[in-house]
Amino acid sequence: MNVILLPKSAFCFHTQTAIIDDNTQVGHIKTVLSAQIGDTIKIGMLDGNLGTAVVTELDERCLLTNVLLDKSPPPKLDLTVILALPRPKVLRRLIMDMTAMGVPNIILVNSYRTDKSYWQSPLLLRLDEFVLEGLQQSIDTIAPKILLAKRFKPFVEDELPTLLHHKNAVVAHPYAKQNFTQLTKEALPQVLIVGAEGGFIPYEIELLSSVGVQAATLGERILRTESAINALLGRWLQ
Amino acid sequence: MNVILLPKSAFCFHTQTAIIDDNTQVGHIKTVLSAQIGDTIKIGMLDGNLGTAVVTELDERCLLTNVLLDKSPPPKLDLTVILALPRPKVLRRLIMDMTAMGVPNIILVNSYRTDKSYWQSPLLLRLDEFVLEGLQQSIDTIAPKILLAKRFKPFVEDELPTLLHHKNAVVAHPYAKQNFTQLTKEALPQVLIVGAEGGFIPYEIELLSSVGVQAATLGERILRTESAINALLGRWLQ
Repeated sequence: MNVILLPKSAFCFHTQTAIIDDNTQVGHIKTVLSAQIGDTIKIGMLDGNLGTAVVTELDERCLLTNVLLDKSPPPKLDLTVILALPRPKVLRRLIMDMTAMGVPNIILVNSYRTDKSYWQSPLLLRLDEFVLEGLQQSIDTIAPKILLAKRFKPFVEDELPTLLHHKNAVVAHPYAKQNFTQLTKEALPQVLIVGAEGGFIPYEIELLSSVGVQAATLGERILRTESAINALLGRWLQ
Repeated sequence: MNVILLPKSAFCFHTQTAIIDDNTQVGHIKTVLSAQIGDTIKIGMLDGNLGTAVVTELDERCLLTNVLLDKSPPPKLDLTVILALPRPKVLRRLIMDMTAMGVPNIILVNSYRTDKSYWQSPLLLRLDEFVLEGLQQSIDTIAPKILLAKRFKPFVEDELPTLLHHKNAVVAHPYAKQNFTQLTKEALPQVLIVGAEGGFIPYEIELLSSVGVQAATLGERILRTESAINALLGRWLQ
């Protein structure tokens, strides 16, 4: 973690102090940062500003003093990512990376190639944890909104059109005629849709097309979902 | 794996047959592909063509007949990636992803922030395995060349200038003034240099600059090495 993020309840603004009682965070301060009493560390408040504080007590908990939160979090991308629910194994890194890159809206959607068991994964109850890891990686404080859409067709027909109002949407599809490299920076869509491993089936691509979603390919090489998402999102970074 | 790659020695071209005796590959054919006797599967010859063959016997080994290798592997990127040796934990996925994306030349280099212990990692002896995974992921047959450069300064001063002859090189550096999004598709460099977690130190950036390497940033957000490499390489894909 490149910053330690604390909930608002951890702070006392009257005394400019804060308490860290999360084991992982306290462990990080001790072992990774090797912080000593008197050292200044980078902190942030979830949904708030970034800044610094001084380590004043450090045992099971950590007392911070001279808390100064004077820096705004970095801007987000103008982008909603709609992702077919991936294998639980890769969910953590995908949520972390999308968060770290500054995606403000994430929708996890069902698809034909999404195994039904993925929706039962206990990891789906830990999204907040993966988001926190992503925020602490990229020094941001604002969590993305994550929605789950367990039924593909009703989502595309009933919800997506509203979401697409005045927005361009592109679905990454290996067999599309248009290539992502043909999209200039200005032509990047505000909604990016990515399939699970194996991609969307033709019926799903047609349904997306019927509500105005274009298809574009990253080329003929088949990439891991993680790799593809990062390769795509790289185009939005600046 | 999206294709099963076999060494030349596995083939008998006279009889159009091949033998698969790698446990992982045989297991994949049985459990992931659920192949039956008589099914046609996708195969390829390392350093050769891609094609198909018919599963004819399937027990501890797999006998393939009607081997037809009639398709060239996909083109590679015009790119050499020079990467500060990463934490062993992420080495596998990094090598897999760079291979899958079609990077033909990879140089793993030492840097100030590369922990010395990384060079002792047993995973460094398993690079061929990670390359094979990347090739089987992206349906390619040609392994990238991987070189190790254990000393940064001699590498940059003595070897890099020859490598850069008539080529542009860019080092990814969070504090660079130029942004990657300012590079048009045509201006993408042929050599991309990426630091370990924490990036290169100013001395290293200056040394690279002294042999003509420009610096460019992906923005202020700090990404995991894996995420950054994929985000960067996405710009080369087409």
